[in-house]
Amino acid sequence: MALAELTPELEPYLAQAAYIQMSIFESVARVATLAPSVRAKESLSPAAGQALDKHHRLVVELGKVTDDPAAQMQGIAPAIDHYAAVVRGGDWYESLSSIYLTAGILDDFFVLLAAGIPGDVGTKAAKIIEADTKRDVIPVLLADAIAADPMLGSRLALWGRRLVGDTLLVARSAIHQSGNVYTDEQRIEPVFTELIAKHSRRMDGLGLTA
Amino acid sequence: MALAELTPELEPYLAQAAYIQMSIFESVARVATLAPSVRAKESLSPAAGQALDKHHRLVVELGKVTDDPAAQMQGIAPAIDHYAAVVRGGDWYESLSSIYLTAGILDDFFVLLAAGIPGDVGTKAAKIIEADTKRDVIPVLLADAIAADPMLGSRLALWGRRLVGDTLLVARSAIHQSGNVYTDEQRIEPVFTELIAKHSRRMDGLGLTA
Repeated sequence: MALAELTPELEPYLAQAAYIQMSIFESVARVATLAPSVRAKESLSPAAGQALDKHHRLVVELGKVTDDPAAQMQGIAPAIDHYAAVVRGGDWYESLSSIYLTAGILDDFFVLLAAGIPGDVGTKAAKIIEADTKRDVIPVLLADAIAADPMLGSRLALWGRRLVGDTLLVARSAIHQSGNVYTDEQRIEPVFTELIAKHSRRMDGLGLTA
Repeated sequence: MALAELTPELEPYLAQAAYIQMSIFESVARVATLAPSVRAKESLSPAAGQALDKHHRLVVELGKVTDDPAAQMQGIAPAIDHYAAVVRGGDWYESLSSIYLTAGILDDFFVLLAAGIPGDVGTKAAKIIEADTKRDVIPVLLADAIAADPMLGSRLALWGRRLVGDTLLVARSAIHQSGNVYTDEQRIEPVFTELIAKHSRRMDGLGLTA
């Protein structure tokens, strides 16, 4: 596991992981709010609850190593908020696919990064992040829409490929903000290759060409 | 208890009560997303989780009396969504005070209405709705802002008074959609008087003149 050598610092790691779950929560709550039917809203709302729960559980862990979790998260919030705006997409389907794909990459990344944290807190954080996302409903919602409109599939395939760059920038920034300013790029690359491979499988799962 | 005589029909009652908790969830998630600091975001997020949890618990009750809870809620969703847009407010503080005041009135109303439901499901619904809202943080967030800007207090006082009319229209519509088309207005009035009295106490709690 290449990322185990990255040994992130605990406080920035937990602050980033927690705030990203908050950001996922906000994105899911937004698509649930804008859902075209109550049925779609109902199917998405558990994913909002799960992300919020993961956020709160990661904040509990963060609270064990700092007196002021909010202050720790405040430092990285503007960059994550900006990223969330960039990957929001221009309509409901772009927003929906973006959540599935970007949260997928970021969850994978923070689970991999957790392996480099000494003690059991890394394992604990990974378990929190890996727990059921309830986002499996998203491919179902998208499949119906893509079947009804083939042009939508082409557009979302382009969109899904575009999301990777911005998301890997967030991941790279998380590594650097975790104190690994001098991290060898050769250690990061295999990790990114793994993240992209998993992303391609999610694209396949959405019926999109990666 | 005057409302006990209103004996709402169970399905529309549960559909309305559940969908209104979803609407409260959406509104709280929105103000948490737009919060000016991570600290404010953190303090608001539990209220989002509580409303979502109440929604899901009321949907479980609804699922015991209908095969298709989403379809039951779909009928009333456009009216509630429209109402939510009307009471959203023009800035973050109006949105925040609106949630505290309108969700307060609607929670009170659906708890009162539950008393007219035969059997134990009314008691169960009332318990779900009455459970901790985690919205007590809102007066704290508003008090700081009002102390720093007295004009804001005047504006929010006007806003708070304006919200009552639209919210009581939602309540009145809920009574009528619950099958009480011919409900005597003389039975509704004392209930509304009680709702307004409680609203005035919440206005006081926000430091606003009712």
